[in-house]
Amino acid sequence: MNNRMIIYILGAILLLGAGFMLLPIITALIYREQSGWWFVYTMLGSGVLGALMMLLPRPKNRTIYAKEGLVIVSLSWIVLSLAGALPFTLSGEIPFYLDAVFEMISGFTTTGSSILPNAEALSHCMLFWRSFSHWLGGMGILVFMLAILNMEGGQAIHLLRAESPGPSVSKMVPRMVDSSKILYGIYFALTIIEIVFYLAGGMPLFDSLCNAFGTAGTGGFSVKSASLGAYDYYAQTVSTVFMLLFGVNFSIYFFLLRKKFDLVWHNSELRWYIGIVLVSIVLITLNTVSMTDLYPRAYDAFHHASFTVASIVTTTGFGTVDFNLWPEFSRIILCLLMIIGACAGSTGGGFKVSRLVILFQSAKAELRRLVRPHTVKVVKIDGKPIGQETVRAVSNYLAIYVLLCMVSILLVSLDNFDGSTTITAVLATINNIGPGLGVVGPTGNFAAFSPLSKIVLCLDMLLGRLELYPMLVLMIPSTWTKK
Amino acid sequence: MNNRMIIYILGAILLLGAGFMLLPIITALIYREQSGWWFVYTMLGSGVLGALMMLLPRPKNRTIYAKEGLVIVSLSWIVLSLAGALPFTLSGEIPFYLDAVFEMISGFTTTGSSILPNAEALSHCMLFWRSFSHWLGGMGILVFMLAILNMEGGQAIHLLRAESPGPSVSKMVPRMVDSSKILYGIYFALTIIEIVFYLAGGMPLFDSLCNAFGTAGTGGFSVKSASLGAYDYYAQTVSTVFMLLFGVNFSIYFFLLRKKFDLVWHNSELRWYIGIVLVSIVLITLNTVSMTDLYPRAYDAFHHASFTVASIVTTTGFGTVDFNLWPEFSRIILCLLMIIGACAGSTGGGFKVSRLVILFQSAKAELRRLVRPHTVKVVKIDGKPIGQETVRAVSNYLAIYVLLCMVSILLVSLDNFDGSTTITAVLATINNIGPGLGVVGPTGNFAAFSPLSKIVLCLDMLLGRLELYPMLVLMIPSTWTKK
Repeated sequence: MNNRMIIYILGAILLLGAGFMLLPIITALIYREQSGWWFVYTMLGSGVLGALMMLLPRPKNRTIYAKEGLVIVSLSWIVLSLAGALPFTLSGEIPFYLDAVFEMISGFTTTGSSILPNAEALSHCMLFWRSFSHWLGGMGILVFMLAILNMEGGQAIHLLRAESPGPSVSKMVPRMVDSSKILYGIYFALTIIEIVFYLAGGMPLFDSLCNAFGTAGTGGFSVKSASLGAYDYYAQTVSTVFMLLFGVNFSIYFFLLRKKFDLVWHNSELRWYIGIVLVSIVLITLNTVSMTDLYPRAYDAFHHASFTVASIVTTTGFGTVDFNLWPEFSRIILCLLMIIGACAGSTGGGFKVSRLVILFQSAKAELRRLVRPHTVKVVKIDGKPIGQETVRAVSNYLAIYVLLCMVSILLVSLDNFDGSTTITAVLATINNIGPGLGVVGPTGNFAAFSPLSKIVLCLDMLLGRLELYPMLVLMIPSTWTKK
Repeated sequence: MNNRMIIYILGAILLLGAGFMLLPIITALIYREQSGWWFVYTMLGSGVLGALMMLLPRPKNRTIYAKEGLVIVSLSWIVLSLAGALPFTLSGEIPFYLDAVFEMISGFTTTGSSILPNAEALSHCMLFWRSFSHWLGGMGILVFMLAILNMEGGQAIHLLRAESPGPSVSKMVPRMVDSSKILYGIYFALTIIEIVFYLAGGMPLFDSLCNAFGTAGTGGFSVKSASLGAYDYYAQTVSTVFMLLFGVNFSIYFFLLRKKFDLVWHNSELRWYIGIVLVSIVLITLNTVSMTDLYPRAYDAFHHASFTVASIVTTTGFGTVDFNLWPEFSRIILCLLMIIGACAGSTGGGFKVSRLVILFQSAKAELRRLVRPHTVKVVKIDGKPIGQETVRAVSNYLAIYVLLCMVSILLVSLDNFDGSTTITAVLATINNIGPGLGVVGPTGNFAAFSPLSKIVLCLDMLLGRLELYPMLVLMIPSTWTKK
């Protein structure tokens, strides 16, 4: 274990985090808010600490392996969340530090679960920081660092692989650093376009920025307690479209820029994603129109079904209506969408559509093997065979995911809430969605849980965002023993 | 596809099913019940049909392959359930045929989910037939046929493999026919011992027989609507012990008979099974004592916790108390036990402890591979390496299981019951348990579901009991197309 190198990179991350705090400080200056001072103090504190960590005798051996990559990623996210939560508690706006950490982890992991009953009670600089953490966490904090620091490729790949969502990382261009620059370029451009669309519809600049951050990172924190329900249909429709866009694998946009339209057209994950979204919208619209009187016009039902499906499948978690009131069939569709999640290589969370496709194809091959035992069956996606290794990794991912869900649900159930609340609180955090059903539904919040449950849910958010392994490697003893 | 041979064996199964109806006819004679006549008519009808199917020009080619084995098993179970349900509807005791089929499939698959609000309303011969179907279904109907007919080994293995629970079938003795005789011998002996214990405690003979059938098959139909709650602590304790015994892999008993105690001692599935049961009992006892006033004495809490854990983990589904009233933590433990299920090679259902152990070991190997990428990791159980093929098969099993649960829950949710009811109705049937939570809890029943949901739940029961593949092979088109 290259401890010196780990400390060095963690120092860089702390310094970077301190730099980002300039933005809420500017917000505080504009709105003349006293709470802004706490960002100044935190920035100075973590900046000095980070610089000290980097200035310690420089590591001679700069090599990092997969194991160090995983440990660095998980520790970075934890350290940044602990530092980022300080201003909330120091200013007294979120009095308990654990609650502030929960809110911050929820921000960075783009979950959007909140312990606040009323978002409007926070000052502007706090709201801005909360939403900005979504934007940072969406594409990845270390990816950002790679994009600005020119690290050697051998080191970068382990970090990028540990932080990027999906079963396999495809290099877009030979150098990983260039890949991360392209990713952040597309991300930045899409965010700007969304802000312009919001402004064009008359949304104030502050709200436009925060809501665009929440959409881009597929996070879900809003500056209003009514979430996107506080705005008009135009703003909601813009959000629907952009949530879906940010749920797409970013390599699709790269292909579009390179005019490789056939690769886009034949991408099976994209086809499944579009299919799942369209079928869900149609089914929920029909179900809510036929079984409830919630929406006087069919168009309203379609509008809210589209928004909610986009919000849940991309694991954003914005709300326009209380889907707790929808019929059970619609709610079960939402639960399934929660688990499936968005595309690999997007900012969305969940199990990922591509993993679902791989499992589905693997299951089909298994069945064909039973019927025709003497023919060799290979699992194929996009016409290309998928290696036995990938199928094994995806299957193990499912197994670990199911085991972790079970343990988390068991621990959270000690708080004795009803089954819907307990189960969806875990699903909503481990899949980085935000709201669940019952007490943690779109009109509720996570404040009522015990400290134990909050810690479990914090770990679930980190496990979900970092796709299990970095956090698990951090927690297993053999990582820390000499071979 | 050897259609002639399929028809031949289905005929044999129908004839065998007709033979078993002698038992409810004898019951009807003893209790002088008119409904017994319907068993006579059904017996004659299916006996004649079965004989005709066997007497058709005899198949020249008697070879059956894995595919035929799977199709024969699934068709046998469906045909027997359709025939066995006739007396219920013809006699008017269960007026709707779909309900009667649900009840019969629930019997044969040892699920124990009922559409009856009040078991006492049935006549004795019907109650006997219902419970006896558990006993037949527990060890397997085709296994029984193999034990009495002397089929050639090459054919028998495919049938036995398709019907037996667990990830792999271990031959106990070289000839499969002998294996099935040994299995039924142990099964028969354990059932007799349980009946003797019941009788010794003063339970009437009829109740003793029916409850022993329900325990042995880990089914859960009772002759009382209060289930085992209608009897004293002694009878309940006998049931607890025997439910747990029938949840053990039967090869353990074979090893004990052969005095191979080291194989028993080192069996990791058995160790996990005992561990899971003990931990669950302790946790539920502590939880119910500390958080409710349901049980005045700690011993009562322990007694009911033991009974319920045994009933749920073995997927029997007998009840002594309404565990809907327990705190959420206990209810979540029960939900997890529902999914885990009993040991492979037992009469219990569920995912099976051995599959859980394999997934757990495979996940551990995956994590170690991340930390030490250059060492080869092999998944081991009982000190022996588990082949890549077995791990792949178990992972695919999990994937298909999860996908089927999702689809079933979605279809059942159309009935618009609450989430607990919808989800546990599917889990309780696909894992062959019986009761779920909410409307389908231990004091409720499945009558309120729509015909569509009942069909889905019937398929789930068959999918669960036959471990997915026979039913899936029956349903996929490529089984029926010429190569």
